[in-house]
Amino acid sequence: MAKTIIKNGTIVTASDEYEADILIEDEKITTIGKNLQETDAEIVDASGQYIFPGGVDPHTHLEMPFGGTVSKDDFESGSIAAAFGGTTSVIDFCLTSKDKPLSSSIQEWHDKSQGRSVIDYGFHLMITQMNEDVLDQLPSIIQNDGITSFKVFMAYKNVFQADDETLYRTLLAAKELGALVMVHAENGDVIQHLTEEALAAGNTEPIYHARTRPSEIEGEATGRAARFTGLADSQLYVVHVSCADAAEEIRKARRKGANVWGETCPQYLVLDESYMDQPGFEGAKYVWSPPLREKWNQEELWTAIKNGDLSTIGSDQCSFDFNGQKDLGKDDFTKIPNGGPMIEDRMSILYSEGVAKGRISRQQFVDITSTKSAKLFGLYPDKGTIAVGADADLVLFNPGESRTISVKTQLMAVDYNAFEGMEVQGVIESVMVRGRFVVRDRKLEAEPGYGKYMKRKPFALGSSSKTAASTSV
Amino acid sequence: MAKTIIKNGTIVTASDEYEADILIEDEKITTIGKNLQETDAEIVDASGQYIFPGGVDPHTHLEMPFGGTVSKDDFESGSIAAAFGGTTSVIDFCLTSKDKPLSSSIQEWHDKSQGRSVIDYGFHLMITQMNEDVLDQLPSIIQNDGITSFKVFMAYKNVFQADDETLYRTLLAAKELGALVMVHAENGDVIQHLTEEALAAGNTEPIYHARTRPSEIEGEATGRAARFTGLADSQLYVVHVSCADAAEEIRKARRKGANVWGETCPQYLVLDESYMDQPGFEGAKYVWSPPLREKWNQEELWTAIKNGDLSTIGSDQCSFDFNGQKDLGKDDFTKIPNGGPMIEDRMSILYSEGVAKGRISRQQFVDITSTKSAKLFGLYPDKGTIAVGADADLVLFNPGESRTISVKTQLMAVDYNAFEGMEVQGVIESVMVRGRFVVRDRKLEAEPGYGKYMKRKPFALGSSSKTAASTSV
Amino acid sequence: MAKTIIKNGTIVTASDEYEADILIEDEKITTIGKNLQETDAEIVDASGQYIFPGGVDPHTHLEMPFGGTVSKDDFESGSIAAAFGGTTSVIDFCLTSKDKPLSSSIQEWHDKSQGRSVIDYGFHLMITQMNEDVLDQLPSIIQNDGITSFKVFMAYKNVFQADDETLYRTLLAAKELGALVMVHAENGDVIQHLTEEALAAGNTEPIYHARTRPSEIEGEATGRAARFTGLADSQLYVVHVSCADAAEEIRKARRKGANVWGETCPQYLVLDESYMDQPGFEGAKYVWSPPLREKWNQEELWTAIKNGDLSTIGSDQCSFDFNGQKDLGKDDFTKIPNGGPMIEDRMSILYSEGVAKGRISRQQFVDITSTKSAKLFGLYPDKGTIAVGADADLVLFNPGESRTISVKTQLMAVDYNAFEGMEVQGVIESVMVRGRFVVRDRKLEAEPGYGKYMKRKPFALGSSSKTAASTSV
Amino acid sequence: MAKTIIKNGTIVTASDEYEADILIEDEKITTIGKNLQETDAEIVDASGQYIFPGGVDPHTHLEMPFGGTVSKDDFESGSIAAAFGGTTSVIDFCLTSKDKPLSSSIQEWHDKSQGRSVIDYGFHLMITQMNEDVLDQLPSIIQNDGITSFKVFMAYKNVFQADDETLYRTLLAAKELGALVMVHAENGDVIQHLTEEALAAGNTEPIYHARTRPSEIEGEATGRAARFTGLADSQLYVVHVSCADAAEEIRKARRKGANVWGETCPQYLVLDESYMDQPGFEGAKYVWSPPLREKWNQEELWTAIKNGDLSTIGSDQCSFDFNGQKDLGKDDFTKIPNGGPMIEDRMSILYSEGVAKGRISRQQFVDITSTKSAKLFGLYPDKGTIAVGADADLVLFNPGESRTISVKTQLMAVDYNAFEGMEVQGVIESVMVRGRFVVRDRKLEAEPGYGKYMKRKPFALGSSSKTAASTSV
Repeated sequence: MAKTIIKNGTIVTASDEYEADILIEDEKITTIGKNLQETDAEIVDASGQYIFPGGVDPHTHLEMPFGGTVSKDDFESGSIAAAFGGTTSVIDFCLTSKDKPLSSSIQEWHDKSQGRSVIDYGFHLMITQMNEDVLDQLPSIIQNDGITSFKVFMAYKNVFQADDETLYRTLLAAKELGALVMVHAENGDVIQHLTEEALAAGNTEPIYHARTRPSEIEGEATGRAARFTGLADSQLYVVHVSCADAAEEIRKARRKGANVWGETCPQYLVLDESYMDQPGFEGAKYVWSPPLREKWNQEELWTAIKNGDLSTIGSDQCSFDFNGQKDLGKDDFTKIPNGGPMIEDRMSILYSEGVAKGRISRQQFVDITSTKSAKLFGLYPDKGTIAVGADADLVLFNPGESRTISVKTQLMAVDYNAFEGMEVQGVIESVMVRGRFVVRDRKLEAEPGYGKYMKRKPFALGSSSKTAASTSV
Repeated sequence: MAKTIIKNGTIVTASDEYEADILIEDEKITTIGKNLQETDAEIVDASGQYIFPGGVDPHTHLEMPFGGTVSKDDFESGSIAAAFGGTTSVIDFCLTSKDKPLSSSIQEWHDKSQGRSVIDYGFHLMITQMNEDVLDQLPSIIQNDGITSFKVFMAYKNVFQADDETLYRTLLAAKELGALVMVHAENGDVIQHLTEEALAAGNTEPIYHARTRPSEIEGEATGRAARFTGLADSQLYVVHVSCADAAEEIRKARRKGANVWGETCPQYLVLDESYMDQPGFEGAKYVWSPPLREKWNQEELWTAIKNGDLSTIGSDQCSFDFNGQKDLGKDDFTKIPNGGPMIEDRMSILYSEGVAKGRISRQQFVDITSTKSAKLFGLYPDKGTIAVGADADLVLFNPGESRTISVKTQLMAVDYNAFEGMEVQGVIESVMVRGRFVVRDRKLEAEPGYGKYMKRKPFALGSSSKTAASTSV
Repeated sequence: MAKTIIKNGTIVTASDEYEADILIEDEKITTIGKNLQETDAEIVDASGQYIFPGGVDPHTHLEMPFGGTVSKDDFESGSIAAAFGGTTSVIDFCLTSKDKPLSSSIQEWHDKSQGRSVIDYGFHLMITQMNEDVLDQLPSIIQNDGITSFKVFMAYKNVFQADDETLYRTLLAAKELGALVMVHAENGDVIQHLTEEALAAGNTEPIYHARTRPSEIEGEATGRAARFTGLADSQLYVVHVSCADAAEEIRKARRKGANVWGETCPQYLVLDESYMDQPGFEGAKYVWSPPLREKWNQEELWTAIKNGDLSTIGSDQCSFDFNGQKDLGKDDFTKIPNGGPMIEDRMSILYSEGVAKGRISRQQFVDITSTKSAKLFGLYPDKGTIAVGADADLVLFNPGESRTISVKTQLMAVDYNAFEGMEVQGVIESVMVRGRFVVRDRKLEAEPGYGKYMKRKPFALGSSSKTAASTSV
Repeated sequence: MAKTIIKNGTIVTASDEYEADILIEDEKITTIGKNLQETDAEIVDASGQYIFPGGVDPHTHLEMPFGGTVSKDDFESGSIAAAFGGTTSVIDFCLTSKDKPLSSSIQEWHDKSQGRSVIDYGFHLMITQMNEDVLDQLPSIIQNDGITSFKVFMAYKNVFQADDETLYRTLLAAKELGALVMVHAENGDVIQHLTEEALAAGNTEPIYHARTRPSEIEGEATGRAARFTGLADSQLYVVHVSCADAAEEIRKARRKGANVWGETCPQYLVLDESYMDQPGFEGAKYVWSPPLREKWNQEELWTAIKNGDLSTIGSDQCSFDFNGQKDLGKDDFTKIPNGGPMIEDRMSILYSEGVAKGRISRQQFVDITSTKSAKLFGLYPDKGTIAVGADADLVLFNPGESRTISVKTQLMAVDYNAFEGMEVQGVIESVMVRGRFVVRDRKLEAEPGYGKYMKRKPFALGSSSKTAASTSV
């Protein structure tokens, strides 16, 4: 049995912080204590370092077809970048199509991830329609495939967009079967018209991506989905909340007792709309959906995090090369592939902007980057914490040093970084996944394929640690 | 060195839950792990039990003079009752007077607690005026006496009530010195007039206690104090939030980013105004300030707890005999001593009504009954969690059994129980304070005086575990 | 030239109240003064009476096809009933179809109203789709047909329901062309599913009409349309607001400066959901869409009226016989024709419940039953007030008497009255339309066809009395 | 009998607008009609002009002692300036003192106004304490003196400030006796401390007047008074609302059904805090209490006016010379007399910024500058409208011309104008008070003493025109 002891670090969880040693046996944490000693264990010194639970990134799009191209980072490059960034689990979106069985889409996702990832991974499933046929497939998907979260798009009219009846029925099905519904909340109908208007007026620059997706219609869609959730007494997870308006709708729903959680992303906390309004095509690097917002929204999002109105941080990783992919939209902003590289720096940016700047505590940092996602998506207590019995997914973090984000040093496979030149406080030294160092002293030690597919537990409120989640999420 | 191992229990913290053994050496937890073995340790089997951190009751009034009498439970009977109820630390209110130095009031409180308590205890300090003289005394009180929270009364006109200038200056002083301001938030001026009106109209029954203290004026005072806090960029803790109106004001302040926390009490979650409106003088048993509210407020308070808008549960223990004390107000409700016996059943009621009924998770139960109070009041990480390095303050809790609350079986020294006949799910079997069983198998094992006075750390936001608190509170 | 002087009455307008005589020459008011004398004028004594501007009912469905039948009251019986109830103008909904030109639907509505009405009338136009073809037709409809308000349905999926893109484009078109957009705000998708579920479960009774159209989805749709309006900087009129939730959404939009107005109806102010939950099929008499709500909503609606958050009162007249029409839904609530008889008692109920019970002033009564509708829908200043130059549309109202609403005495052509037995304070004695008594001393004096079709002025904010409306609406 | 006919003007009231002639006999309007002809009447041509009801300024401080000096404009210069500005009635604040009977303060106010004013005037009465003695005096003050509004100060600690008990008791007394309570809503306790702090830090410049009176504490006090009003079921008028925060508190109270109205002033709609932050002592010209606010508040105040959340516009006229009075505070901002000259341009600024810029309609202009004040303060229907039977208080307004505000041309008796150089659209040509031109073709025609003291009617909700007010206010 392989044994490792990590000594002298400061363990940080979603509620605690203390100095102790960690004994790892094979994949699991088996003991936490003062001055642990095992003669047959490898000793790792973590003096002066924080030991965080490995990050759980609840929102990635690796090697995903979009707008006539495919997102650049695949499960190999993406997972390696994630690992260097302290993320030890990702949940990737499995796209589906009305034309084929859900199982074949799932298989497709297994095909592209199998043997590629250095960290653990799971899948969310996209729902585009809800009918008896789909309903028949879901129990097996939950029980056998371990896919316990379903995503519905309220945007991308005529492409991914589902109608309200589908969303409502998905909420009902999720409630009955034990799954969590996710929404991309923007009103696709209004976007459709604003986009047509913009193009008709010859407005083709990247900034029009923002101007045709105003925050009001994210707020609207968020409020609509949240209301449905309360009415159906179901559960909802709103991905990539970008603006104060949407955060307020989530807050309102929660205030009425609804089980609604929101995710935001580093880009919305740090960047703003002005980045899209640069001369030439430079703005295309910053084309996410929802778009970056006016700067004042950032402080509102931080306050929402501080108060627990927003619960998680996803990367929404969906990277495209600036040259060769983003430029598909050179003459028409609607053809710019949406998304950007973010899987690698998600935790670094949160620590630096959140903890180091005094906006959130280290406990909250752990909670939003790891614990809450693990609990909501059926991975806890294997993932998401540092506790006896948990997987030894650990990040050794050096808070005293800093580094500069740059395309030159990044692991992500694309030709730019939206945070180029940003200095972040704190450096991730080593990252362990299930007891093994995938990254050690900033060097890769694991081979593609080490990462395992995670069957996730059904969603359950107020449940014990034996099942997925609880109202504490 | 005394060693104990608690085996086979399920450890519950504010964020985690897992099965492991706990090794205690002298007063501290030194190791948590699977299958711990120490030949010289006493082994305690906790199979089938939850192990919670010992409760931290942030709000008690033991042996306190009030309305011409003195609250019945003192540090001996009160601490014993608390221990049986799973509470291992209390913070009691030290009353002060404009006429004498604060140090002499503190000494008075030491005099009545010294050698009496079976659990650990600390003091809050009442502030009735704020001037240069008081300001001069505070640094030493914080640093030397370890009293790091100050309470201001917005009610009890001509008795305890401070004016707004005093409250505002206290907030400023607290910010500078590292203390947390607490308020009793009701508008004493309006109460004064409503009370005079009621008496003038011959309305002397207990129910008029409620009718002269409507929830609007609790909401008003709460909002006022919360606004001051935001303006002063200070920190505020609102004691005994009884109604939706006040909870909403706290929520609003937090939503604007203010550092405001709210405490509620079991009585407001379970009892309601109708208890005060019984024939004869029976209603006097239920005279708290603020008063019990209309029943619909309860669900609003639970939602506020669920969402983190309310942060802690205090007992507001302030017990008086029905015969001989409460009946001082037989002919005049204003003479009924305010308060009731609650120190013993605080945690039982929260578990039973909260966790067992599915309103909150076990993690939230731990957070609101122990962890948050420890963090806010400078006791963490010694108190408030189960982690290596923490004091071994532990509750062994049997969730499978139930018991009935009754004056016949209670430890509190008064002649009634406001929850008489209520069945609660879960039974506290044993309670350990700093490594020693104070209660074991439902029997007292410690002697008065075992409990120690706790010097508390200054209040500090976003700070490390070395100091008191963080934004995570 | 016909001259009439109405003497000694108390004139009431949306802002004023005073005693004076009114001189009418032909159709118009030409002088208002003390002791008016014209030798050739007919003198009408109005001592002890209020003289209100004739009511403007902004929402009727006369002889309208619905659910396989046709609403019973046509322009003859409907207009006579309206006249007896103090209403001198109605604006009826012209249904359209995707399959034929809008002009042919308008012609159809002219065909059924021509020569039938005893009061003046105009049309709103339903919009089911928005495209270049429709856009081409609108300018002429506004300018030549004098139809300056367009209604979009967010409910009745697969029947009337338009998608969000249509609603948004209609708002933009209305802004450009000078029209007011009206919405039926309920989420048709969710209703669709709830209805299917109810029927599948064998729940066919009338009460399920309410249970499948919960107030949340009216609130949702109202908020959605209001947000679109703010975004488009257009103008919106929400018909038949039934619940606090929807009223709150209107308030919120107005608070942000959006041009959004709400209409409610007497049924929502006086009746409640329990009427639908009677034994047998009796509940079918109370099937409106939106449905009647829980009783607590009523006080919220009154407060919204008092504060100006709701602006008008419509009848939503759409009457069906209980025997022979409503009973189409005897075995399936979805087949009950929606709507009820209300055109006759709209003003009586508002006066009695509003003014006589002290909830609103007489000025507000005039404003919500007449003035605001006239201003919003391009009829002011001909209609909607008592002022020199206005049409002599007048109601002589005796506040001292009362009457009982009953099917036995009503003028509406159906076999029941939803307010059967309700006593209302105040009696309408005489009603004048353009200088001629249509009802005099409670007797009909005009013949069908006296009423004229009203071409309405375009919608314009902040405009003078020469055009339609102003921000004062 | 003196007769005048004003021909060809456009009459504007709070709800109407139409062209007609007005016949005035002695002091009253007796007829309104088309082509009025009286052989013995003087004919005044008002072609191309709006005829507004004379303005009712609900808030002036003429010749008032303040801070060791006396406000410069007295009832003579102040009333003349008011008249030129279209205001035909003012209600001035009668200061009182705890040391003498209220009647002697009233007499003092009569002494300084008697024979001085060219327009009609009334008094509000300041309440500093509430006890049996004061209660005994109020009925006669209401009935005999015709003073039906009482003002309570929540600011100016140790000077005017009343405690909450006084405010609450005043609300109860007002409810019983038929009066309207007015509050100056700022928290004087917090101001007191912030002021001391500022001075102690050597911050003596005018801008510190703003920094020591932040909007939060106006919001706080407004909310507090509004809550008391709801609780007491009384009626409240909040003077000089300066910020969004306070407007929101009024909105909230109204939304709950409370009878609360707000007044704002031109200075808060047009000027902002930056005016106080000029080099040297220039900022002293802009020292009002509450202070000018950050600019973004202005749009919020306009929206509040548009929606009826704010009801009236007062001038808060309280003028001091810059040289010789304001400079009392040259070295200490707390010694700058608070207030400014505004009685003259109140209506001009509102018309120009409100109506001419499309923010409000002419109807709303009339309502907020005249009608609502007349209704709320017991002057309607004599004042506040143009209707048969009303006093002939009229403003002939030429909308086509413009003028520039300047100290050089103003009638107010002080040495500066805070709006110096501002161009306003529309010019007031002539102003009539009770049938007589006080200003004609921009020249003074009346002598001091023409204005009469107005005994006002008691406050009554939902009442007829015979008494003071109604819920329509």
